[in-house]
Amino acid sequence: MRAVIPYKKENAKSRLSTVMTKEQRETFVEKMLLDVVATLKEGGIRNIDIITPKACDVKKEVKANIIEDDTDLNDCLNKYLSQKEEPILIIMADLPLVKFSHIEDIVASEADVTIVPGKGGGTNILFIRKPEKFRVKYYGSSFENHCMIAAQQKLSIRVYDSFLASTDIDEPQDITELLLHGQGIAKDYAKKRFGKTESKGRVKISPFNEILMS
Amino acid sequence: MRAVIPYKKENAKSRLSTVMTKEQRETFVEKMLLDVVATLKEGGIRNIDIITPKACDVKKEVKANIIEDDTDLNDCLNKYLSQKEEPILIIMADLPLVKFSHIEDIVASEADVTIVPGKGGGTNILFIRKPEKFRVKYYGSSFENHCMIAAQQKLSIRVYDSFLASTDIDEPQDITELLLHGQGIAKDYAKKRFGKTESKGRVKISPFNEILMS
Repeated sequence: MRAVIPYKKENAKSRLSTVMTKEQRETFVEKMLLDVVATLKEGGIRNIDIITPKACDVKKEVKANIIEDDTDLNDCLNKYLSQKEEPILIIMADLPLVKFSHIEDIVASEADVTIVPGKGGGTNILFIRKPEKFRVKYYGSSFENHCMIAAQQKLSIRVYDSFLASTDIDEPQDITELLLHGQGIAKDYAKKRFGKTESKGRVKISPFNEILMS
Repeated sequence: MRAVIPYKKENAKSRLSTVMTKEQRETFVEKMLLDVVATLKEGGIRNIDIITPKACDVKKEVKANIIEDDTDLNDCLNKYLSQKEEPILIIMADLPLVKFSHIEDIVASEADVTIVPGKGGGTNILFIRKPEKFRVKYYGSSFENHCMIAAQQKLSIRVYDSFLASTDIDEPQDITELLLHGQGIAKDYAKKRFGKTESKGRVKISPFNEILMS
């Protein structure tokens, strides 16, 4: 089996632009990628591919095979799947809360397709036992898309229920979860930049510097 | 063992007031309470108490013992715990995504305290084996509070990792999760009032009637 991580550094995480500069966001996604790769290795995954539009955007310290592909996310992943005959784990790069035990659980799953939903209808992780029978359809309500595609192909589905694995870091309130429940270097990076503000409702982040600095 | 659900109907869920009228919010929390009680019963919990400031606010069809207490959430729950000698499951009323299998897992836990975090630092479920040794501290970063209180009391802690059980319905985007992953009557209620709007980012809800009507 292999894992593949789609990764884009340039102007990444635009929905965090209210709390981070472009440079900070680009550094932050690098840290999250390092966390995800470390977790995969800890979870026993030896073959890791990173698909990225610009190979030089992946730091040399990231120990993985780099595949340069600047086509749309769905196109490049479907091309990738069509070339594979072994089980494939597709994992997003913005999941610093995932632990190696989640990876172990997911790849031990007997279902044809294991899906970890993301917040707001996304898909954070897909484990596909028969890549030749599946195609991805990210963006929008991709969790529903992927359930439907698996059903159309008569593939069995397991929805993996984990708060940590379902928390993709895309919007400012997600950084709260990283501060509260995280452990890796992306959490350390966030911790230097954000405090937590309590109220009667949910805890929010508060940037230490109101005027953002890289 | 017993379960206890703190419940307030009057002007409930004020953070949903941008998408629901007061009357709709009050009906919605009733539906969520019914879902939670049904799930507890399905999960094998026979003794269910509901603590509420106004007993008449709990519909007769809700099969549970009603305890009227109009003091603060922490005060009334700590008074409740101090009077109990059996394991206590505290579960919030806004968790329509919780399934009976979660309840079974949680009450089978051997830890002194099992905590299900809520979104943004909250606490959705607490299973307390020795209620005389524990006290609650809700609001703000209550997940951290409860971990700290357990540690101070030298009680073992298990953090229960579930996307469904960690999704409390408090803000408009939470209703998206209910529409996507829910099953009970609160989901049916939401489904009549909201559609889903897709974009490149997370799926959002869109009220069917822009001008809110009860």
